[in-house]
Amino acid sequence: MTALEPVLKSLDDNLDHSLERLFELLRIKSISTDPAFAGDCRKAAEWLVADLSAMDFEAGIRETAGHPMVVAHHEGATPDAPHVLFYGHYDVQPVDPLELWEEDPFAPSVKTGEAGRKVIRARGAADDKGQLMTFVEACRAYKAAHGALPCRVTILFEGEEESGSPSLKPFLEANAEELKADFALVCDTGMWDHETPAISTALRGLVGEEIVVKAANRDLHSGLYGGAAANPIHILSKILADIHDENGRVTIPGFFDGVEETPADILKVWEKLERGADDFLAEVGLSIPAGEKGRSVLELTWARPTAEVNGVTGGYTGKGFKTVIAAEASAKVSFRLVHKQDPNRIRAAFREFVKARIPADCSVEFHQHGNSPAIQLPFDSPLLQEAKTALSDEWPNEAVMVAMGGSIPIVGDFQRLLGMDSLLVGFGLPDDRVHSPNEKYELSSFHKGQRSWARILDAIAR
Amino acid sequence: MTALEPVLKSLDDNLDHSLERLFELLRIKSISTDPAFAGDCRKAAEWLVADLSAMDFEAGIRETAGHPMVVAHHEGATPDAPHVLFYGHYDVQPVDPLELWEEDPFAPSVKTGEAGRKVIRARGAADDKGQLMTFVEACRAYKAAHGALPCRVTILFEGEEESGSPSLKPFLEANAEELKADFALVCDTGMWDHETPAISTALRGLVGEEIVVKAANRDLHSGLYGGAAANPIHILSKILADIHDENGRVTIPGFFDGVEETPADILKVWEKLERGADDFLAEVGLSIPAGEKGRSVLELTWARPTAEVNGVTGGYTGKGFKTVIAAEASAKVSFRLVHKQDPNRIRAAFREFVKARIPADCSVEFHQHGNSPAIQLPFDSPLLQEAKTALSDEWPNEAVMVAMGGSIPIVGDFQRLLGMDSLLVGFGLPDDRVHSPNEKYELSSFHKGQRSWARILDAIAR
Repeated sequence: MTALEPVLKSLDDNLDHSLERLFELLRIKSISTDPAFAGDCRKAAEWLVADLSAMDFEAGIRETAGHPMVVAHHEGATPDAPHVLFYGHYDVQPVDPLELWEEDPFAPSVKTGEAGRKVIRARGAADDKGQLMTFVEACRAYKAAHGALPCRVTILFEGEEESGSPSLKPFLEANAEELKADFALVCDTGMWDHETPAISTALRGLVGEEIVVKAANRDLHSGLYGGAAANPIHILSKILADIHDENGRVTIPGFFDGVEETPADILKVWEKLERGADDFLAEVGLSIPAGEKGRSVLELTWARPTAEVNGVTGGYTGKGFKTVIAAEASAKVSFRLVHKQDPNRIRAAFREFVKARIPADCSVEFHQHGNSPAIQLPFDSPLLQEAKTALSDEWPNEAVMVAMGGSIPIVGDFQRLLGMDSLLVGFGLPDDRVHSPNEKYELSSFHKGQRSWARILDAIAR
Repeated sequence: MTALEPVLKSLDDNLDHSLERLFELLRIKSISTDPAFAGDCRKAAEWLVADLSAMDFEAGIRETAGHPMVVAHHEGATPDAPHVLFYGHYDVQPVDPLELWEEDPFAPSVKTGEAGRKVIRARGAADDKGQLMTFVEACRAYKAAHGALPCRVTILFEGEEESGSPSLKPFLEANAEELKADFALVCDTGMWDHETPAISTALRGLVGEEIVVKAANRDLHSGLYGGAAANPIHILSKILADIHDENGRVTIPGFFDGVEETPADILKVWEKLERGADDFLAEVGLSIPAGEKGRSVLELTWARPTAEVNGVTGGYTGKGFKTVIAAEASAKVSFRLVHKQDPNRIRAAFREFVKARIPADCSVEFHQHGNSPAIQLPFDSPLLQEAKTALSDEWPNEAVMVAMGGSIPIVGDFQRLLGMDSLLVGFGLPDDRVHSPNEKYELSSFHKGQRSWARILDAIAR
């Protein structure tokens, strides 16, 4: 009998109890954005401290300028056991519009979901109370079965994730020594589908830049000046059009410095997932992948850098028509970065690219928005491979390495401030309706997720 | 002694009286856009009827759905004298912001202007009461000197020019036979400078088109979809950038059909005026002529067709940043047409040009705004040559043939509805501040303008 078997058995035997505990936490209205619920946020933090203390975690409330943090420590079975930091958040999104909920968002219950599978329905069921309790229950079962955890575990729960995490960075900086572990476990991600677990290996970085092209010192009449005066919309359109070549590739010099090709075996896995990716475009009314030609939708959104114009404005944009040549025109452009692309060098290269296209009698202003590098875990790291095996052992389908087109700021913070990588594993599903009415978390995500975390902890320890 | 000399002498002798009459008209607050001044508009029309009747014009008020027209007829000295239709308008722009006026806009006076020359200051001093009375005074002096006018003269004054002339077209259609003359005299133009009279030989036409590029069925998150989903701002930017080649020339197939080269002798005159054209750009903070390379600013704005984007909008345009891929993006594009360019063909060619650049999973909508061909008088017409000589005889500098980048709709209406060309001569100056506070009309424009019209009437009759 392996060390894992009694843990898994304990999880199976205690599913109802674990549900009761989750329901207790879900009943607390810990809406962090609304000051009226500040007391509930503290109550959720205190509930977690009590629950973790009952499992012999050295747990406590840690005050911040906003809602408190929960920090808890548990030694590993051996002094040289790996040390992991698990991150989650106990606060939830507001619930309006309340009338769209099928039941009270703070009266959790198990229902049969749209797909015929059992789901836990409540605000926070998935994001993030369900996900964090999935991990906590795995620890509880391990402790119950063996009297100890296989790894040294530090837990950090914040109460301001849904309101921008204003206290998180200062807290990480002030408590770096205490929180630093071998790596972090971040559960704010999901599965590929309800039978296929996933590990997120990459998050794209972001450079945001606003450019304002200025021409004449005032708006001009296009009859009088048209054909003679510089039109900033023309200049801007040319700049924006020049960013991509006819194959959808970004043309800014040096843009691809630090971009690596995705390993062939990873691409092969993604190819198998690509049917879902077609649905991904079809669902929003599109059918042709834009961007770099010859690459799949998944590779484009997960492993390739992009330049997207997020907004453009200039001249007369109201009803009807005004024959004006605008004095200025502006655009907001963002770049999603991958691998080792350097945000500062990309910003500088873009500014040069723009300046080279501004006529001598016109000018351009730049405004910086967002500046973060990409997160990329090496696909061949032992940690990823162990987690992959552990997940594949639990679920019907083998775990897939995926990536995220967007960013999870905490992952970058852990890397920059605490010098540690994150393992991104979570059991949410794309249709969990996080932030929306009727949020749910699949019962199998909760149960098999607990079993998955037990397997991962076991694998990490070995 | 020529027929002209006593007329000119009469004008010189009666300048003060003519000023008094103009002041009477300027005191009437005939603001056509504000219903509160409807009575004043009628009063202005009645004043003109009375004044013209006093000169033996067969003059009358003609009702419309809005403010009334004034129509007046006077026979020529001989039955076969040419017949001209003089057009002007008695309504004026509103006067706000009133606090920026140096004196009451309806208490006209002669002041010394900024350039040290005497100016008549009042709302309507130039636009258009001053300009129309300049012509009326020439008729009065002719009549006083010879008991008759040298030409048959029909006068049409409208009272809705500053509010879009809603009654004008129906009125022209309903009274075409009565109003049709050999040609029209339209005074809504200006001199090149205070010593150089000008004849406008061309007005550019206009095609306005709004395009809306549609991609996904909703706004998308650029992290999740960036690099995979079509971005309508990219598509639109490419379209707008493609409209001009690297030499500033419009690339739409067939766009230049019907465009003629300006005669070399006209270009030569324009070259001499070009220093003023440099100032024209410098005044608005620019220095490099945009548009077709190798052509002067004057040629570009007077004799070449253009494509100008008058407005563009898409995505997030507020403060800060939002990493969104917009569902749609739109632009308003106008084309200024010259010579024989066909507005309908240009619109159709542009739509094809746009459609060819829309990906198969995206769409585009078009909205039509404005559709008028250019007006071009033959440079070698006897009418132009006579008017040019008459003006050159009066002013220090020879009259120049100029053009207007914008349009005067009435000129097109006269051509389309009454089948007659217009002679565009006026005595306004670029700094008259029409439509703005402290509108003025130079006293020399009024006086030498009267003498100019007398010379032109005399030349036409001969």
